[in-house]
Amino acid sequence: MVSTKGEASRSRLIASAEELFARKGIHATTVSQIVAHAGLTQAAFYLYFKSKEEMVTELLDTFERRLDLFTDAGRHVGELPGGEIEDHVIRTFAGLFRLLGDNTNLTRIALQGTDRGELLRDRIVSRIADNMANNQSLAIVRPEVEPTLVAESVVASVERLVYRYIMTGEKDAEQLGRQAGKLFLRGILNHHRIGG
Amino acid sequence: MVSTKGEASRSRLIASAEELFARKGIHATTVSQIVAHAGLTQAAFYLYFKSKEEMVTELLDTFERRLDLFTDAGRHVGELPGGEIEDHVIRTFAGLFRLLGDNTNLTRIALQGTDRGELLRDRIVSRIADNMANNQSLAIVRPEVEPTLVAESVVASVERLVYRYIMTGEKDAEQLGRQAGKLFLRGILNHHRIGG
Repeated sequence: MVSTKGEASRSRLIASAEELFARKGIHATTVSQIVAHAGLTQAAFYLYFKSKEEMVTELLDTFERRLDLFTDAGRHVGELPGGEIEDHVIRTFAGLFRLLGDNTNLTRIALQGTDRGELLRDRIVSRIADNMANNQSLAIVRPEVEPTLVAESVVASVERLVYRYIMTGEKDAEQLGRQAGKLFLRGILNHHRIGG
Repeated sequence: MVSTKGEASRSRLIASAEELFARKGIHATTVSQIVAHAGLTQAAFYLYFKSKEEMVTELLDTFERRLDLFTDAGRHVGELPGGEIEDHVIRTFAGLFRLLGDNTNLTRIALQGTDRGELLRDRIVSRIADNMANNQSLAIVRPEVEPTLVAESVVASVERLVYRYIMTGEKDAEQLGRQAGKLFLRGILNHHRIGG
């Protein structure tokens, strides 16, 4: 039975692992280092996780589910009145920047170029592209736009803006959401669908 | 005096170095490896370069001068009739994708996250942002656009599109130039400046 004290140990192990994975890479981080940094024992680690790999999978699964809320936001654009599309897109981008900025260690881990990180990235690109293609069939998005190419641009830009502005504290999620949301929305929308 | 044979050796050393730097990183590549891969001797290397560092500087200086032709293209937008802006921007993006695609090793080296690569990237972002700010003062670019933020997005997108489409041979420079050029131009332009 996992007690409250057990939950606290588990959280400490996760926080320790996230910090080390982000700083040194997953490969270079050992279970001994994770437990030492958390002030716990190897036995404590293996009470909660089968292996480092299982822990990484759990961390990224959770992160992915939280990301899905934002990457799937384009799905509902077709149901909105034209004047509300821009607000919806800006809010979605701002929410995404907030999630990534509140979880900078997980963001760094996911973007580290590991196989799992690449899969996560490809999945995000696909979801954004699928929703964009759907909005294209509804004539919201310009017909000559290539959804996958634009989705790749969006993901690359979001990554860069998080490193450049969120991790340095130079801009907040709302400022980035407004700029990136408008930039990409105006870049892909059919003219008559934009407010002004 | 450097003979034609000397020039050929120098070119072989440069090609060998570019390939190894791109594949293994600058730090992990030694002069011995560069000369072995080129089928030459250490003596040949030191005939043309003082050190590995000097060679890296020369490679990136040359690359930077060639990149400048494209990153500075926004400077002349204000002189163009409105209808020609889009063509000019598309041609510029296509030229940039062609240069990066024709020099994939140098592109990888420049983007490797070395100090010099970071400087090069920052310089490109600044040039694009400066020209965008100038075009904003001419009312070509929308007033609320933040030039540096958009320039960061442009550079991040170009990098990603090169890796994803040019290095895999999936799309050519013209296709990418058209898509990226239109995406970012429409994202930042004042409405009345776009053709249709």
